[in-house]
Amino acid sequence: MHESPSVERLLERAVGSLTGPGCPPRLAAAIRHAVLGGGNRLRPRLCLAVAAALRPANLRAAEQAAVAVELLHCASLVHDDLPCFDDAPTRRGRPSVHHAFGEPLAVLAGDALIVAAFDALSTVRAPDGAVAAALAALLARAAGTREGITAGQAWEDEEQIDLDRYHQAKTAALFEAATTMGACAAGDDPERWRELGRRIGRSYQLADDLRDAGGDERTLGKPVGRDAVLGRPNAAHALGPTGAVARLEELLAGVPRTVPECPGRSELLEFLERLLAKFRP
Amino acid sequence: MHESPSVERLLERAVGSLTGPGCPPRLAAAIRHAVLGGGNRLRPRLCLAVAAALRPANLRAAEQAAVAVELLHCASLVHDDLPCFDDAPTRRGRPSVHHAFGEPLAVLAGDALIVAAFDALSTVRAPDGAVAAALAALLARAAGTREGITAGQAWEDEEQIDLDRYHQAKTAALFEAATTMGACAAGDDPERWRELGRRIGRSYQLADDLRDAGGDERTLGKPVGRDAVLGRPNAAHALGPTGAVARLEELLAGVPRTVPECPGRSELLEFLERLLAKFRP
Repeated sequence: MHESPSVERLLERAVGSLTGPGCPPRLAAAIRHAVLGGGNRLRPRLCLAVAAALRPANLRAAEQAAVAVELLHCASLVHDDLPCFDDAPTRRGRPSVHHAFGEPLAVLAGDALIVAAFDALSTVRAPDGAVAAALAALLARAAGTREGITAGQAWEDEEQIDLDRYHQAKTAALFEAATTMGACAAGDDPERWRELGRRIGRSYQLADDLRDAGGDERTLGKPVGRDAVLGRPNAAHALGPTGAVARLEELLAGVPRTVPECPGRSELLEFLERLLAKFRP
Repeated sequence: MHESPSVERLLERAVGSLTGPGCPPRLAAAIRHAVLGGGNRLRPRLCLAVAAALRPANLRAAEQAAVAVELLHCASLVHDDLPCFDDAPTRRGRPSVHHAFGEPLAVLAGDALIVAAFDALSTVRAPDGAVAAALAALLARAAGTREGITAGQAWEDEEQIDLDRYHQAKTAALFEAATTMGACAAGDDPERWRELGRRIGRSYQLADDLRDAGGDERTLGKPVGRDAVLGRPNAAHALGPTGAVARLEELLAGVPRTVPECPGRSELLEFLERLLAKFRP
């Protein structure tokens, strides 16, 4: 399967348009720093892989969906790193946006990237106009206040948190956006693809909790042990390291059976195997 | 002309959906506070008035456009009031969102309202699917980094600000969104309606600068004299009070000639006269 070597180029093009004539120079620099500073691009690659497995006439709508998912992800990282949340000094091995550019530009860069994510979808023309609106609705759900990343982050401000619901909203929702939007962009029923995204997202969160609980700051490019410091729920603490690793293996083992029938299913399974290998501790 | 008594009800419905099952309770409260705490609803009323003047088969698409414009406006107020920007203790005569709910929920409520604005547009079905995408593109431009409100706010972080470009991006862009989106929702060419929104927005900013320079906090429901305190450009300071009032009268006098030909032009002119009367000092 074509593993979308073009994700980086798609993002560069989106950032180029965002930071074009008229954009205040420091805002432009903050946006470039937020989007083009590395990142493993898991979500857009997953989005494109799902779309490609459905063999659409072309991948243009899927490319816009992939860009939208990654821009929204970048926005959430910039805002989550702010002093009032994680107060993270580093991200992707470099200063966080507010450390490099100050808090006002970090708030604005995040806002701008949310807008840009939806703007990317507004340019989707094929196969018909309704696809753009359907993609926007899927992204809004994943970003939203009821089961999306805004809800996930806001649960940290509540006295009672349900770990499962918290991880679903904070992390799995955007992986669901990746698979459902890839399917929708390729003309398939997005809901057939939600469980796959959910399972990958749950695995990713568990792997992230394990890394936070026992990882190395230099390898990860961001601080470790933050969940304990910030009093946030962490599955590796809740289940214990052995229990968390067992749960992760169980989640990963179940991924293939959540991949729906489609023309490029075997290439998609290979892609997922390579992708998910990196989740193992 | 029907002056949209339903704007408040439309917003209540949107907020009800945003804060429905699954939404963390404190986030829900912050969102209600941000959107339903008064406000004169100038932008959505303008959006609906423009659409109505074009006599579409129904106003459903225009209603979603009006909701989107106001939600985006509310998002910008919540973020602009944050400590790292204006650090405003009050808004619309009540505590600002971060004063009432803390900074994390103010950041998240603003983010959620940006998402909700685009989500409102994703539900537009009539007259055809492409309208939803066209509306999203118009809103994204008004919110964006090159000529939208994100750019406007970011200019405050630059050493050199052009007062005209700053006010255009910070204020006029969203009034342009109101008129162009109202027209687009009613099936007309949005660009015919941009100059009207621009002129109303410029007038509004000038009126706001005059109020900030000489107004009364109790009447306005927000602090006055903030531009001087925060070192922000203010047209009433730049032109002097007499010059600013003369410029405002000139802008207002020119509004009627920017209203395009349309079936309901005379009712629209009456609506605008009532709306703009409140801009005069």
